[in-house]
Amino acid sequence: MTYGKQRVYKKVEVIGVSPVSIEEAIKSALHRAHHSLERVSWFEVEETRGHVNEKGEVSEYQVVLKVAFELK
Amino acid sequence: MTYGKQRVYKKVEVIGVSPVSIEEAIKSALHRAHHSLERVSWFEVEETRGHVNEKGEVSEYQVVLKVAFELK
Amino acid sequence: MTYGKQRVYKKVEVIGVSPVSIEEAIKSALHRAHHSLERVSWFEVEETRGHVNEKGEVSEYQVVLKVAFELK
Amino acid sequence: MTYGKQRVYKKVEVIGVSPVSIEEAIKSALHRAHHSLERVSWFEVEETRGHVNEKGEVSEYQVVLKVAFELK
Amino acid sequence: MTYGKQRVYKKVEVIGVSPVSIEEAIKSALHRAHHSLERVSWFEVEETRGHVNEKGEVSEYQVVLKVAFELK
Amino acid sequence: MTYGKQRVYKKVEVIGVSPVSIEEAIKSALHRAHHSLERVSWFEVEETRGHVNEKGEVSEYQVVLKVAFELK
Amino acid sequence: MTYGKQRVYKKVEVIGVSPVSIEEAIKSALHRAHHSLERVSWFEVEETRGHVNEKGEVSEYQVVLKVAFELK
Amino acid sequence: MTYGKQRVYKKVEVIGVSPVSIEEAIKSALHRAHHSLERVSWFEVEETRGHVNEKGEVSEYQVVLKVAFELK
Amino acid sequence: MTYGKQRVYKKVEVIGVSPVSIEEAIKSALHRAHHSLERVSWFEVEETRGHVNEKGEVSEYQVVLKVAFELK
Amino acid sequence: MTYGKQRVYKKVEVIGVSPVSIEEAIKSALHRAHHSLERVSWFEVEETRGHVNEKGEVSEYQVVLKVAFELK
Amino acid sequence: MTYGKQRVYKKVEVIGVSPVSIEEAIKSALHRAHHSLERVSWFEVEETRGHVNEKGEVSEYQVVLKVAFELK
Amino acid sequence: MTYGKQRVYKKVEVIGVSPVSIEEAIKSALHRAHHSLERVSWFEVEETRGHVNEKGEVSEYQVVLKVAFELK
Repeated sequence: MTYGKQRVYKKVEVIGVSPVSIEEAIKSALHRAHHSLERVSWFEVEETRGHVNEKGEVSEYQVVLKVAFELK
Repeated sequence: MTYGKQRVYKKVEVIGVSPVSIEEAIKSALHRAHHSLERVSWFEVEETRGHVNEKGEVSEYQVVLKVAFELK
Repeated sequence: MTYGKQRVYKKVEVIGVSPVSIEEAIKSALHRAHHSLERVSWFEVEETRGHVNEKGEVSEYQVVLKVAFELK
Repeated sequence: MTYGKQRVYKKVEVIGVSPVSIEEAIKSALHRAHHSLERVSWFEVEETRGHVNEKGEVSEYQVVLKVAFELK
Repeated sequence: MTYGKQRVYKKVEVIGVSPVSIEEAIKSALHRAHHSLERVSWFEVEETRGHVNEKGEVSEYQVVLKVAFELK
Repeated sequence: MTYGKQRVYKKVEVIGVSPVSIEEAIKSALHRAHHSLERVSWFEVEETRGHVNEKGEVSEYQVVLKVAFELK
Repeated sequence: MTYGKQRVYKKVEVIGVSPVSIEEAIKSALHRAHHSLERVSWFEVEETRGHVNEKGEVSEYQVVLKVAFELK
Repeated sequence: MTYGKQRVYKKVEVIGVSPVSIEEAIKSALHRAHHSLERVSWFEVEETRGHVNEKGEVSEYQVVLKVAFELK
Repeated sequence: MTYGKQRVYKKVEVIGVSPVSIEEAIKSALHRAHHSLERVSWFEVEETRGHVNEKGEVSEYQVVLKVAFELK
Repeated sequence: MTYGKQRVYKKVEVIGVSPVSIEEAIKSALHRAHHSLERVSWFEVEETRGHVNEKGEVSEYQVVLKVAFELK
Repeated sequence: MTYGKQRVYKKVEVIGVSPVSIEEAIKSALHRAHHSLERVSWFEVEETRGHVNEKGEVSEYQVVLKVAFELK
Repeated sequence: MTYGKQRVYKKVEVIGVSPVSIEEAIKSALHRAHHSLERVSWFEVEETRGHVNEKGEVSEYQVVLKVAFELK
């Protein structure tokens, strides 16, 4: 990539989930985005939330991300 | 849906309008989203605005929504 | 356009860059959006940033925009 | 109205109340603004609040709006 | 109530739901708060969201409120 | 005032200054507003800032307020 | 208190009022919280507002606070 | 102007438009404000938006400003 | 849980700490909430902070959460 | 100072504390900044917090400020 | 620069001014930062403001920036 | 540290990166700050972002922190 050169990026908002960790929830969302979007360049965490089961344990982390990729 | 199971959601931003009410503007946006997106799971109201006619009446409510749906 | 008439808009987030000015970065993003999206109606500037080269000069302005267009 | 033509708008903040609904509170504020301001073009909802009576019922909805009108 | 007189309020965050409207979701939360809290004086809407069923219809509005009441 | 009765408020933004304290800056703005606006009902502090003299002392507190009054 | 040791805090939102000053409104809320909550550790000011009497004077300062205390 | 001396400012919100640039939209709003308000001291940009024509070009920049002036 | 059925949730703000990780701080807060509140359904991370010891190491992560549970 | 003349300011974030009042906490931070920074021109209050002792009294106000000074 | 390699950045807040344009105000701040800071990598616009002269003209644009640079 | 005793803190903004986890990115920034700043007392996470490589994997987490330390 050369700075100053004409290009346009798009950002889309996705939510990844993981029973393990915040990082795994991020990776899960990026993995899915890699399949349907053009190559993702970076991500930004918007929100971190989660679901709690009946024992008071985290059943999953839910991470809302913006992912950015270049429009070719 | 089972919590903790791998899945990814996407959120898109849409604007519905209605001359009648905020609820009708929401429904209008969801109705349209139902046609082109995979099944919508939930929505979040981002902004409520409206246009006013020359008699000082609301000609339409404009509701900016995020709608979320699972990526299959 | 007639206010009060049923219609739905969508907003997407894009980033335009330009070595020249904030306005050129906006135009660059709109030009690209015009090719792939249905007709854009308006834009909203979300963020203005930029890259700086080794001489301390702006190598490019980066403008994050929301662009809105009617869903037909 | 022609886009690109020189004009200036002003926004003022008003609060409408209604015992009935959020929409009626909005209309009430617009009705009043219509009398003292130049023609209102649009509104933006800033806050929705309300008062509760001793039975736990909503005695009124209070909606804080920005209303915009063209300065002639 | 006399302004300037010593008193303390508390605010708690509750979420009301209704399949009908935003106003009904607010009333539902206030009705419940009326039973367990001391007399509620006012509310502030924090967020408006909702669930969507498989036909693309709003199955319920979810309104996040702050409700305020005087501590006796 | 009776809750549920039709009325409309307006909010305007003013800045009061005082070399003494934040409270005096608020009072100064309210005193001035009392002369030109209809009776002010309440205020909300938006920002607190100040100017510093060459000895590193506060030469004045500047408080940005919204003041609200009923439109008759 | 030892950092790194397991403990959990709770924050609750309270509003103190005083005809005298912002500091007195804070103290008033803390005094009340001290009676019903476990020992308060710190507070954070969320909002500063006030009521104005018919002479344009502050009849009371209203300070919205979060107060935090350890859950034993 | 002498710091520490009693004075009160007011801020009003205006929107300027220009087909040329963000700076021209700001100037346009200030020019208009200069005619009806007491002398404007400073401005703050709140939002930058714009309208897009059917060719994907910016037909106008719309800049929402707060303008501040001293109340005499 | 059936969507559209009458129910009310409450959210409370708690802070969990852990010398190990952000996830452990979340779990610690949820574990404690599970003992005193009705069954927690979900959480939202509000703030992530931490204390640093004299060697420049994280002595604990402090995570401010909202936890939500149904009022029965 | 002449407006329009080339100059650059820097803002740094400091926290002042005082057992007495918010104003004293501000002055305390400015007094310290006066010793190590070039001449401070203005300040902006970012956050107001405090510590509470075991009797429920404010042991100190903590005010987070941005202080701005010209770079020579 | 290689992503994934250990490095630390710092951000500082500066304000540039220019009688000409927003872009010139940005450049002015970057030019000054280039002299005293290690090499600046990027900037983010935080606020755009300006001073207005007695004719209602912009005497200067004031742009508040965060500038980021790598700590070596 | 004794509460109520005169002291002043400063906060600076730093960005740590790590290919491994959010916690490692935080530690990396704190480690660096420990070398050049006076003893850091606490940190606050401002933003969590990251870079993505051509396989759709996280090449590094980037965490923007405020770190606070006492000015002696």
